Amino acid sequence: MAEEKLTTRAEDFSEWYNQLVLKADLADYAPVRGCMVVKPYGWTLWENITAALDKEFKATGHVNAAFPTLIPMSFFEKEKAHVEGFAPELAVVTHGGGELLEEPLVVRPTSETIIGYMYAKWIKSWRDLPILINQWGSVMRWELRTKLFLRTAEFYWQEGHTAHSNSEEAKEEMFRILDIYANFAINEAALPVVKGTKSETERFAGAQITTSIEGMMQDKKALQSATSHYFGQNFAKAFEIQYVDQNNTLQFCETTSWGLSTRMIGAIIMTHGDDQGLVLPPRLAPIQAVIVPIFKTAEEKAKVMEVADRVFKELKAAGIRIKMDDRDNVSSGFKFNDWEMRGVPVRIEVGPKDVEKGSVALARRDRPGREGKSFVPQAGLDSTVSGLLVEIQDALLKRATEFRDANIHTPKDYDDLKKIVTDGWAFAYWCESRECEAKVKEDCKATTRNIPFDQPKEEGTCIVCGKPSKRKVYFAKAY
Amino acid sequence: MAEEKLTTRAEDFSEWYNQLVLKADLADYAPVRGCMVVKPYGWTLWENITAALDKEFKATGHVNAAFPTLIPMSFFEKEKAHVEGFAPELAVVTHGGGELLEEPLVVRPTSETIIGYMYAKWIKSWRDLPILINQWGSVMRWELRTKLFLRTAEFYWQEGHTAHSNSEEAKEEMFRILDIYANFAINEAALPVVKGTKSETERFAGAQITTSIEGMMQDKKALQSATSHYFGQNFAKAFEIQYVDQNNTLQFCETTSWGLSTRMIGAIIMTHGDDQGLVLPPRLAPIQAVIVPIFKTAEEKAKVMEVADRVFKELKAAGIRIKMDDRDNVSSGFKFNDWEMRGVPVRIEVGPKDVEKGSVALARRDRPGREGKSFVPQAGLDSTVSGLLVEIQDALLKRATEFRDANIHTPKDYDDLKKIVTDGWAFAYWCESRECEAKVKEDCKATTRNIPFDQPKEEGTCIVCGKPSKRKVYFAKAY
Repeated sequence: MAEEKLTTRAEDFSEWYNQLVLKADLADYAPVRGCMVVKPYGWTLWENITAALDKEFKATGHVNAAFPTLIPMSFFEKEKAHVEGFAPELAVVTHGGGELLEEPLVVRPTSETIIGYMYAKWIKSWRDLPILINQWGSVMRWELRTKLFLRTAEFYWQEGHTAHSNSEEAKEEMFRILDIYANFAINEAALPVVKGTKSETERFAGAQITTSIEGMMQDKKALQSATSHYFGQNFAKAFEIQYVDQNNTLQFCETTSWGLSTRMIGAIIMTHGDDQGLVLPPRLAPIQAVIVPIFKTAEEKAKVMEVADRVFKELKAAGIRIKMDDRDNVSSGFKFNDWEMRGVPVRIEVGPKDVEKGSVALARRDRPGREGKSFVPQAGLDSTVSGLLVEIQDALLKRATEFRDANIHTPKDYDDLKKIVTDGWAFAYWCESRECEAKVKEDCKATTRNIPFDQPKEEGTCIVCGKPSKRKVYFAKAY
Repeated sequence: MAEEKLTTRAEDFSEWYNQLVLKADLADYAPVRGCMVVKPYGWTLWENITAALDKEFKATGHVNAAFPTLIPMSFFEKEKAHVEGFAPELAVVTHGGGELLEEPLVVRPTSETIIGYMYAKWIKSWRDLPILINQWGSVMRWELRTKLFLRTAEFYWQEGHTAHSNSEEAKEEMFRILDIYANFAINEAALPVVKGTKSETERFAGAQITTSIEGMMQDKKALQSATSHYFGQNFAKAFEIQYVDQNNTLQFCETTSWGLSTRMIGAIIMTHGDDQGLVLPPRLAPIQAVIVPIFKTAEEKAKVMEVADRVFKELKAAGIRIKMDDRDNVSSGFKFNDWEMRGVPVRIEVGPKDVEKGSVALARRDRPGREGKSFVPQAGLDSTVSGLLVEIQDALLKRATEFRDANIHTPKDYDDLKKIVTDGWAFAYWCESRECEAKVKEDCKATTRNIPFDQPKEEGTCIVCGKPSKRKVYFAKAY
């Protein structure tokens, strides 16, 4: 419910976000520190995200499975970098059925270890490879500073885990999934993300290569929106994931993992939202169009509802996710604000004059106010609205892409970089040393986001130290 | 893989079950005591179950949401019967982020408490009611004696939690959901379950009424396959779930909860399986038909594969979940056994003679051997197979119903009841006293399963104590 005015983005972007998540009815704070409740409206959005991704995973040969939520503590100690990365964030079960456990169990922060253990058991021969499994579920990372969807102790995600007979195939898998993530972000969520490789310090604990998609939020900070990792034989050696090859020789597998989480909802909010509230891309919106019937007298009501009901049926039959708001205890103005807050892409108003004229009023959520309002005939409204949904989807992507491109700058020198990252991303040559990366982080709190695959042909010199550099990287402040 | 012969049901039903779950590739034992890994084949079966149920929940106005996995220990202490029921089974998180927690957190065994807490926060007025939320996820109950799918420390399920303004509506909800469960079991899983009310001692911890669907397994034991509970105001009072009614008076809500779990997979196995392995109802089978091309020479292969590929495409286009088994490292006989073990409803064999004759061989999984084999024209195979899948679905339900009905007996007297429950269910009048129920349990290890809604018109006398009785109950040994 949108009773109180939303703090504007200009006033306080962080506070705007926090209020919006609650007012748009997406999620709520749980009574467990750092945890969230994803409310039905937010969960339906997540269901639309999962359906789109799951279809792509299955189309590329992946299958889903379920591995236990609890993992023996000793499993984490088998891969050195992995345990170092996750140890500070673990939630630990010490008692079960009233008794102290012999070995503590960890509420999974990620499942490489237990899945690696099972793969070692299942994989015998090259004929068993590749093994391409995904899991939908939640994981637990004991975060101190939390923010709904962006950083919570428990969050929802999918984690894919694959094993291959050779590194080429494993790397291809990593890139294939990154493409699925990027295509999903761009085509379904209207998020113009950039694809690239993470620096060594920003890699996932235990990975040899981490790739990511990164999006620019409206405060110009970057949000890592999904990652895809290549482990080489690190986990295969830690868990003895081996196979007999065609020459009857025992070999270690090459493995990958990849994940996309409810963080994606945070990315959608911070990319498309405005001072009226949430703005949802039509392809993912739980409700794509809402009908608000407008009348005063009983006579008007009868006429208006006849048209509204007919429109509802027509649009529903056309496969549009449509909602009728026939509440009688709130004003039309309240309803307008309410659905704007929830980011419904199209509002359809039907009043007595519309009934007379055979028209309805359409309001586009992405263009609030008069600019986004039009009067169209009731005849053929299903295709009018379907077309408008496509138009809005495209407009959101275009606007976000223009915003991103307008806020990525090439620094002239290091001082310029420092200035740029206070209000945008810097795209600069970097020598790929930890020292230069650390210096930028210390000087201006910006981190390397990723080294995009699309690179200029010519080489350059590191923006920090001036040494030769082959590739440019994005520097930005990040969530 | 079906290398070793399955123990037969007659030899050892329990061992038959344990072997089948592994050999049919449904699940595996996890390295955490009492937990399971649901393998892709088993998980796809579960996905088909969840899709069918989710559709019905949504069609009846329910929405999904997600509540935290961890629940403060103190929440359990708010409802007396609830904590007594669940305290012995809790897994407890005592440490997070390397530190001892102020209050221990429980890995949810069920979510009435945390959802009740949130409902108290969300519900203000009669206009907010009813609230109809479902959650898909897993829960943890520290079981000592576990069996894959039937009883594991962690299992997968859905749990619905609803709040209403009056008891009639809450009870209607409980019954509506029980009907959804029963219809699903009968129409999708071919399980002829009986619907009824549980006795007071068999109720869910904290419920005023518990209803269940109960199925008869092939060993004639009963399996409680889903439950739907009415709580009255028990949880509403414990968690202060209140609303202001239309007269501006503060009232307590009436609540329900209901759940169906991966146990359903155990029910399917033990109802339909045979000595060759799993037998899946076509409507839920991950693979509905498998094509086994049969050839010796390269010339034969070319001809056979041309037909097999065409058939594959045709059946896929007809919406049949079809699999091509073109493995070249195992014999056709091995493939037959393998797919029989996995319970695929229809096998399609294509050999050189079939190519000549324009036919294929169809083998029905529900009738192994020659009896279930037929030769049919390749022309129109999509509708032939679709029709056969319907026929198999019906045949499974019919066979299970006949088996159930042949093994439910009306005892003449108490001695007869004792005999009946050693190898069947007894359907008998019972005075509904705890004493008589306890006596049966002690004398013959049989429990009351449920008091079915379909009852004879006349009253009778309790099979145990001879006192007047209004309703009959099923007594049976149970999982």
